[in-house]
Amino acid sequence: MRKLFVIGIGAGNPEHMTVQAITALNKTDVLFIPDKGEEKSDLAALRHEICDRFVTNARTRRVSFDVPRRATPSPSYESTVDDWHTAIAAIYEALIRDEIAENGCGALLIWGDPMLYDSALRILERVRHRGNVSFDTEVIPGITAIQSLCASHKIALNRIADPVLITTGRRLLGEGMPPNAGTVVVMLDGNCAFRSLPGKNLTIFWGAYLGTPDEIIISGRLGDVEDRIVAVRAKARAAKGWIMDTYLLRQQGEAEEDTL
Amino acid sequence: MRKLFVIGIGAGNPEHMTVQAITALNKTDVLFIPDKGEEKSDLAALRHEICDRFVTNARTRRVSFDVPRRATPSPSYESTVDDWHTAIAAIYEALIRDEIAENGCGALLIWGDPMLYDSALRILERVRHRGNVSFDTEVIPGITAIQSLCASHKIALNRIADPVLITTGRRLLGEGMPPNAGTVVVMLDGNCAFRSLPGKNLTIFWGAYLGTPDEIIISGRLGDVEDRIVAVRAKARAAKGWIMDTYLLRQQGEAEEDTL
Repeated sequence: MRKLFVIGIGAGNPEHMTVQAITALNKTDVLFIPDKGEEKSDLAALRHEICDRFVTNARTRRVSFDVPRRATPSPSYESTVDDWHTAIAAIYEALIRDEIAENGCGALLIWGDPMLYDSALRILERVRHRGNVSFDTEVIPGITAIQSLCASHKIALNRIADPVLITTGRRLLGEGMPPNAGTVVVMLDGNCAFRSLPGKNLTIFWGAYLGTPDEIIISGRLGDVEDRIVAVRAKARAAKGWIMDTYLLRQQGEAEEDTL
Repeated sequence: MRKLFVIGIGAGNPEHMTVQAITALNKTDVLFIPDKGEEKSDLAALRHEICDRFVTNARTRRVSFDVPRRATPSPSYESTVDDWHTAIAAIYEALIRDEIAENGCGALLIWGDPMLYDSALRILERVRHRGNVSFDTEVIPGITAIQSLCASHKIALNRIADPVLITTGRRLLGEGMPPNAGTVVVMLDGNCAFRSLPGKNLTIFWGAYLGTPDEIIISGRLGDVEDRIVAVRAKARAAKGWIMDTYLLRQQGEAEEDTL
């Protein structure tokens, strides 16, 4: 049986690599490296840096592959994602079939953790359902941007015994702050949805390029710092050509706990 | 200035340790190890195992300290937590003042990640506000039980572009499944709150002793597997004397996306 590791490689700091991830890299015959397509060039270089630093098994080779671009999300986000995942599934299937020997071992390297707003595991399920090649997967968790954000701000994710909602910029824009969680983490927000919130007495903890030498973090009362975040973000994005950022919004004070 | 690392050491598998965490351990003069109190004895042994395996700096010493027990949560959960945190803050303050030299470096080792349902960072803020000793903190993220759960079940945390609520057993019991997230992760649930849910057409992914050799995972339609989880959990807890478990509940199917 072929085996495929799906390895979380952390949020941008090579030192986020776990011992488990390094061990898996070195059990692997072939590392699949997305070289073009959506991948930002700095990130592609960083991925190679991680391999250069941690792969000590001389038998391990790298195979590059192109990631197809996703169509502009219209009219339905889900249908464009569906087409895109179908295209990637065909690529993964070919890589697994043609590049991993029977009883051999390959690996996909995923930014952050494969569990969090990443589709590799879902796409591999499609490959399995197509039924053209059989393989086992083993998932290795990695440090996510959310964890890197909290570490850099030196904060807990949650208030005491209080829920946390992880959501997207689009959902925050449509729904505002949730009634059932004092903390919200916003992913995949290209449009600074925090500006749309009517209440400005929230605390925001924002970070871009988390875990990398270019990391920028800003925190404060939303009403006081939102303009600065928007300006800093625009400037950094223009200078670098891309940005990846995430943020946490928190109701002020601790949660009001019911008595038991 | 004294320095204190707050290091996430992963969810129970020593190989969850990151390169960053290992580097921090070895920069440290004194590791603070909670030896008694609430700590389960297997976990205390595992913590020493992590130190034995990864600390290579001969100058690094270990200092044990007792963790006070938390009062039974009554009448208000928050007030007992408040007293408990005050007691721990006094202990941390003494450790930092008496055991770390000026310009020296100490470390607290936290299961999972210090950001997730852990109070060390919050308690250290109290120590800072007391004003009796000054110190810098540096937070090192670690793999959480949620990530270990998803890796073992080989699943993504979220449905496509769909929110995730991280909550407690007590809140799930009171509020049921949230209207604004297709996925719920439940922490700190000693009472199998999933049994209280009226709808059984959810998928549950449950895990105990995650990341350790004793790991148990069960998944399936809630209505089909809930009794088995309750029975397996009770048996494991009786055999071992303690249990730590967490689970994820998911609405079936993918999220219904709005058009953009």
